[in-house]
Formats: sequence, structure tokens, C-alpha cells
Amino acid sequence: MQAFNSADFRLGILGGGQLGKMLIQSAMDFGIEVHVLDPDYNASCSSYCHHFKVGSFKDFRDVYHFGKSLDLLTIEIENVNVEALKRLQEEGRRVFPQPELVELIQDKGLQKDFFIENGIPTAPFVKIKDKEELRQHTGKFPAVQKLRKSGYDGRGVFKINSPDDLANAFNEPSILEERVDFEKELSVLAARNESGEVVTYDVVEMEFNPEANLVEMLFSPALISPEMAREAREIAVKVIEKLNLVGLLAVEIFATRDGKLLVNELAPRPHNSGHHTIEACVTSQYEQHLRAILNLPLGSTRLHSNAVMVNLLGAPGYTGDARYEGFPELAGLEGVHIHLYSKKKTKPFRKMGHVTITDNDLDKALEKARLIKEKFKIIA
Amino acid sequence: MQAFNSADFRLGILGGGQLGKMLIQSAMDFGIEVHVLDPDYNASCSSYCHHFKVGSFKDFRDVYHFGKSLDLLTIEIENVNVEALKRLQEEGRRVFPQPELVELIQDKGLQKDFFIENGIPTAPFVKIKDKEELRQHTGKFPAVQKLRKSGYDGRGVFKINSPDDLANAFNEPSILEERVDFEKELSVLAARNESGEVVTYDVVEMEFNPEANLVEMLFSPALISPEMAREAREIAVKVIEKLNLVGLLAVEIFATRDGKLLVNELAPRPHNSGHHTIEACVTSQYEQHLRAILNLPLGSTRLHSNAVMVNLLGAPGYTGDARYEGFPELAGLEGVHIHLYSKKKTKPFRKMGHVTITDNDLDKALEKARLIKEKFKIIA
Repeated sequence: MQAFNSADFRLGILGGGQLGKMLIQSAMDFGIEVHVLDPDYNASCSSYCHHFKVGSFKDFRDVYHFGKSLDLLTIEIENVNVEALKRLQEEGRRVFPQPELVELIQDKGLQKDFFIENGIPTAPFVKIKDKEELRQHTGKFPAVQKLRKSGYDGRGVFKINSPDDLANAFNEPSILEERVDFEKELSVLAARNESGEVVTYDVVEMEFNPEANLVEMLFSPALISPEMAREAREIAVKVIEKLNLVGLLAVEIFATRDGKLLVNELAPRPHNSGHHTIEACVTSQYEQHLRAILNLPLGSTRLHSNAVMVNLLGAPGYTGDARYEGFPELAGLEGVHIHLYSKKKTKPFRKMGHVTITDNDLDKALEKARLIKEKFKIIA
Repeated sequence: MQAFNSADFRLGILGGGQLGKMLIQSAMDFGIEVHVLDPDYNASCSSYCHHFKVGSFKDFRDVYHFGKSLDLLTIEIENVNVEALKRLQEEGRRVFPQPELVELIQDKGLQKDFFIENGIPTAPFVKIKDKEELRQHTGKFPAVQKLRKSGYDGRGVFKINSPDDLANAFNEPSILEERVDFEKELSVLAARNESGEVVTYDVVEMEFNPEANLVEMLFSPALISPEMAREAREIAVKVIEKLNLVGLLAVEIFATRDGKLLVNELAPRPHNSGHHTIEACVTSQYEQHLRAILNLPLGSTRLHSNAVMVNLLGAPGYTGDARYEGFPELAGLEGVHIHLYSKKKTKPFRKMGHVTITDNDLDKALEKARLIKEKFKIIA
């Protein structure tokens, strides 16, 4: 392993947010030198890596210059400059996930085409160029319009109930997707190393905050039948194998009211739906991502404790230096694991941290999660 | 909590080795700004904190100047300048563990006096000033001479079988301790916060490498009777409460062949015998230390998986840039958690990392540990 036989091995991460920070915590376990690129000099990662470079991960020159002295590059956000990654790869740098797969996943239209071509179940859709073209599909309403590119954390998604909503629709390349009458939203994390070894984690079930359109709580294992869980994990294996992706892949899946599973979208990196793996699984998603991109044997994904994860979002109405109301009470709940993201400023619904509650009695863990959502507040 | 209600809260750690590095990994979870003082600019912590200051933690001026702009100071090694910590405390900095307790624990003679005064069981001993005085106690041989100060990782301990060994004995203030015929060497981690809350962890059992006089393997729970385990934990509670120590305290205990427990020595900080708590307990010793010194409620110490810990030592005969022979095979063992300490240079018996093996079947975990000791090598 080059990474462990050279004192000079250097890993670069595009993006310096909380996913990068938790990836660094795992890289520290492996003793790896980490470099990070992010435009915000106050980013979560800024003080915890060997070299933090202020620059845009969307800019060709910034990414290229950042990467050319590194041995291995990875991402913690998918909206990165793919051309620079391709160039770096041509010049001998190792880049995982592969740039062409990041490019495919950046575009929800190409993602959908990939699902169709490979027999991956997904909701019916059409690709549209602009609002003008959208008007030709009023017969498909109610539907969901999703920007093909740059959607993130609920941005770039617009629900269209009737032609009256057209005024506020996006006027950019999008997909128009049939509204799925889903009962549950699930996620499966899969990982694959260069040797082709594949593992998946237990299925997680997500609960959304409808106001913020953000995942606010998730738990694992999902409350679904063993057959459905097996099917969901098989779908994730199929997706990562068809992609030949090296690294971690989050596969978000709708479970419809009539018992079907439909893949919603992919994220080629550690994911919000895998935070609980740090405390609840033998191998965390962050370490697993490193194992995959370093071509080490993948670690056990066994869930040793049932777990609930709650995102800690900035309270509505507060913007400024973050303060944490109810912190000692939060820390006093048994089995509560706190992760604050080192972000100095809060704003409404900003992801400021998360907590994982481990408890083999999932009901008790869910009860604690609800208590936390009620009592704990991030204000300014 | 000041630490969580001020964007400017700063924690300082004296010492930048692996214990400091793992403490930083927990401080990252709490989003705390960390400053570290260590004489080695290549120390394990050097690239993972907000500010790394090169300087001696044994020097009054270095410690005082390091600490005066910080809010809270702690240690990852006990051989620090206590006078500077006392001055900082007088000037309003918070310092945990308390400087006067660090001073007591730095001196094995004062530790022993403390045990006697407080009815803590310990091996009989005498304090001696120098080799001259040692000659008056030949009637106590076989015995163990331990330097009162600066002993660490097996240094400062000398076994005296007969007067023939006197030539090589220390000529410094020491204690001469009756040789304990112990069956097992145990360790109990205790933690106490400022409010007086106390917790202890399950007892760990240590296996020494006789050549290096270093702990090479430990496991928890210890293979002792429930009564002995309860007694060991009660002793640890008594010690930390009599000291009124705030922070983590490792209490090393001999279990004699006739079933008695005798306290060997104390360490007022996260300890080598608590590494396994990262993966095997609900709350790791590092997070627990932070909770204690921040006066947060202490976390659950429940051991959710049985665990074995193996120190990864530099192989004899190799000095220089470290290389890790057998790393992929090591990573491929189920339930193996690798921690490398980011030390570029190896030398014989240098602590370069550790692995924790979690497995509820302790025999299987011990088998894997033996395999690792046989197959994995740190060379140059």
C-alpha cells in the first residue's frame, strides 16, 4: 500500500465541510496526511488538516493546482470541477470516485438515463430544457421538477401540483418526474474498492423536515420487512457494480405504498444518512470510504447497536455567532453522541451538527431524538 | 457551558503525542478550538489542531506563555511544569487535572504517601534518597526500585534481586517497593467532573512485553471474578474521590496470587489502557476526559463489545522512516480498528500505533491479536 509505505503520501479532499471533517477524523486513524480545498477559510475542516487551501472546488485552475502535488484525490461534495479531475487523472494522480462517474451523478438527467439503461427501478420522468418545454407536459402534473445540476440539500426541487404553479417553476434544464406516492424514504450505503469487493450497510429510514426539505432524523435498521431490506441492498449493489464506482455510494430509495422500491438519487461520497455508522457500526462510512479509495479490504458493516440520527439545524429566526441552548442536558442523555461541525455562524436550517443516539431499543432512541428536537436549540 | 456558548473558547493541551491526537479527535466532535504545546514540531498532533506551538511543556516560560491566552488547560502527559500551571490557575485560567494533583502524581513517593494516608491498598515500600541509602535496605531484596520522578513507559524501574545488582541501581530519590507476586496486572479508568459525578469503566487486564517492559496487549473485561472486578472499581472510585481530581484517572492495580488488590500507580489523563474505549464503549475515554474537564454530565461507560487492544511497536532492528508490513492483511481482519499515530520515524519498541479488536467472543479477539503480533511489522 503506497499510502502506508511512504512518509510522503498525500490525500486531497475537495470540499471542507462536515463530511470532510469526519473523513479527516478517520484519516487521522490511518495516519494519512490530508490536504483540503474549500472557498471558505472558516470551513469545518480548516483547522484540522495538514494543509488547507482557500479556493473554489468548482474552478478548473484551483482544483488542478490543488491536486497536482497530491497522490490521491477524493470529494466530500459532488459539485466539483470534473475537467480538472480528469486532467489530474491523465497526469497520473489517482482520483476516486472516478471523475466520469462524478460527472454522471452531477446531472440528474444522466443519472436517470443510467437507471433506465441498467434496469434500475426509478420513477418515470422526462428531460426538459426549460419552462417553455415544461408547458408541453401539463398532462403529467402533479409532478416534481428537479434541476439537472447543482441541486443540493433540497434546493433545486420544485413540486408542481397544477399549471398554476408554472409561474414559479425553474427555467433551466430539469427532469420532470412523476410524483411518487411513497410511504418511506430509505437509504442504502454501498462501498466498492478497486479490486471489486462490495459491501452494503443496513437500510436506513429517513424522516424529513417538510419546512426545510432536509433530513432531520433517520434511524437504522429501517422498519421494513426483511425481504424489502434485502431487495434495497441488492439494488445498491447493482448500482455500484454497474457504475464500477470506487468509493462510497449513497443510494436513496423510495418505498411506495404498493411495496415497490424506486431509486431516487445517488451521492458518490460519505452521506448524511450514514453519520450513525460512526458509533453504531463496526466500520464507519468515513473509514469505509478511505478503505475503498486506498484499495484496502473493506470493513465489516455490521450494525452493533440500533441508532437514530438527528440533524442539528440552526433555529429559524437566528443568524450570527452560534450558541447551543440545552447543551448539558443533551450531553446528559445516555447513548447520545454529539457532533458539532465547527461552524461559527448559524442561520435558519443550517446544518450545524448532528447527534447519534445508540440504543438497542429503537423506540427509546426515537423518544430521545424527539426530546432533543424539542429541547435543544441552536441560536445566535 | 462557556465552551459551547462562546465562539472564542480555547482549549490547550500540554503534550502533542498520540493521546493528545486522540483527544483532539474527540474535541473535534464537540467543535472545540484546540491549541497544543510540544517540543517536537513533527509530533502526532502537529497538523491536526488550530494552533500548534513548539516549546517545552516542562519549561515554566513556555507553559505560561502558551496558557495565558487560553480558557482551559489540560495534559496528555504528566511530566509538565506544574509551577506554570499553578500561576495560570491563580490568574483565572481553568486547569484540569488540578496542578497540585499532577504534582502529587509526578512523584511516586508522594503517591505512595497518599495511598497510605487514605487507606488505599498498595505494596509496602520505603523512600530512599540515593544508592547509599539503598544499601541499608538489602534485607528487603528482592525488591523493585522506582525513581520518584520522570519514570515513563517502563523507564525508571529497576528490579533488584540481590546486593549484586546494586552496581546498576539508580542513585536518585526513589522508592524501594516489596516485589509483588502478582498474578495479573489490571487497570481501571475513572472519571470525575467538577460537580463530583464519578464513573468507572470495566476492568482491563494487561499483558506486558517483558523485553520492552511495555503493555503490548490488553483486553476488557478482565478475566477475574465479578467480586474482584467490583472491588477494583470501588478502589478507583475511592482514589479519584479522595484526590478530588477533575478529569480522567487511570488506576493501575496488581492482583496478587493470594487474591488481594494493590494499587500500583496512577495516571491523571487518558491512558494506554483505555484505547479500546473508542470502539468498544458508549463513551470513549477521550470524550469522557473532555466531559469531565468541561463539567458536562459524564457519559455511559458501558462496554458494548468485548475488546482486545494491541500496541503496534517499532520492530527491533529498524530505525528511520516507518513502513507498515502486512497492512492490508491487518485491515482485512474483521472487527480490527487501526490507529496509526502519524509518527514519521520508527525505532525499536516506539509506540507507533495500536489496533483494537472488537468481538464479543474474547477468545477469537485474542486469537486475532496474536496473529497481528506475529504477522504485522513496523520497519524502516
